[in-house]
Amino acid sequence: MTKNNALGTNVIAQIGILVHDIEKTSQKYADFFGVEKPEWSLTDTLERAKTEFEGNPTDARAKLAFFDMGSLQLELIEPDQNPSTWRKHLDEHGEGPHHIAFFIEGMKEKIAIMESKQMPLLQKGEYTGGRYAYMDTFKDLKIIMELLENDN
Amino acid sequence: MTKNNALGTNVIAQIGILVHDIEKTSQKYADFFGVEKPEWSLTDTLERAKTEFEGNPTDARAKLAFFDMGSLQLELIEPDQNPSTWRKHLDEHGEGPHHIAFFIEGMKEKIAIMESKQMPLLQKGEYTGGRYAYMDTFKDLKIIMELLENDN
Repeated sequence: MTKNNALGTNVIAQIGILVHDIEKTSQKYADFFGVEKPEWSLTDTLERAKTEFEGNPTDARAKLAFFDMGSLQLELIEPDQNPSTWRKHLDEHGEGPHHIAFFIEGMKEKIAIMESKQMPLLQKGEYTGGRYAYMDTFKDLKIIMELLENDN
Repeated sequence: MTKNNALGTNVIAQIGILVHDIEKTSQKYADFFGVEKPEWSLTDTLERAKTEFEGNPTDARAKLAFFDMGSLQLELIEPDQNPSTWRKHLDEHGEGPHHIAFFIEGMKEKIAIMESKQMPLLQKGEYTGGRYAYMDTFKDLKIIMELLENDN
């Protein structure tokens, strides 16, 4: 790891896939890989998650389901109809990959570093024990990147 | 790992990203992650690779560049203009994720298992020391899957 690594890591933690029906697609993954279908969880309400999309608070929530795939997780995401990067991407591109996620330390600093590189913040929010930020890295890297920071 | 795992593995080996300009995007990745820009390599000619797309031989080739990202590789792919899953996906969806790859054993058997699940073969070919197959797993899994088999 060099000092010039903008994230301080190059370890991919998750691949996020947008779907219309998380129950149906979770079952297909479970059947294909011979594992139990995981229960989905719902992201927190605006009051708890403090979700912001394109700079504005949003009531958007999503159902999430996770599969362990070697050293990383495959995350299925079924967004509701409220404004979010999930809903926008699903409406514009259809089902499929949405982002690649990395665990980082120092969320504010990392967001500032990326914004200085013309990689704008798309959406951010909190979850029990941590916080996330989706960064628009498409222009340079051809993907959306998610930063994840867990407390402790 | 259960006997019911169609691939015999759940370890993601590569994420493939389609790009228009592999030199430019490789440099952006190298700068962002603080690593040296890898040299791209060109896939083999039809004569050597025996590339087939949608059941027909194709002269399609692609420039490939690889970045180590934890336990898996991020693969950048710049296809030429000949018919391929790479070119078709790039024309239809633009730059971005194309596939998720797994190392498997027994290519013919694995392709047969997947075809029996209505997951058709999209493209296959050979490289020095191994072979690949792209399978259309979109209907169930919302991604394209690549199978990789290395001789050893």
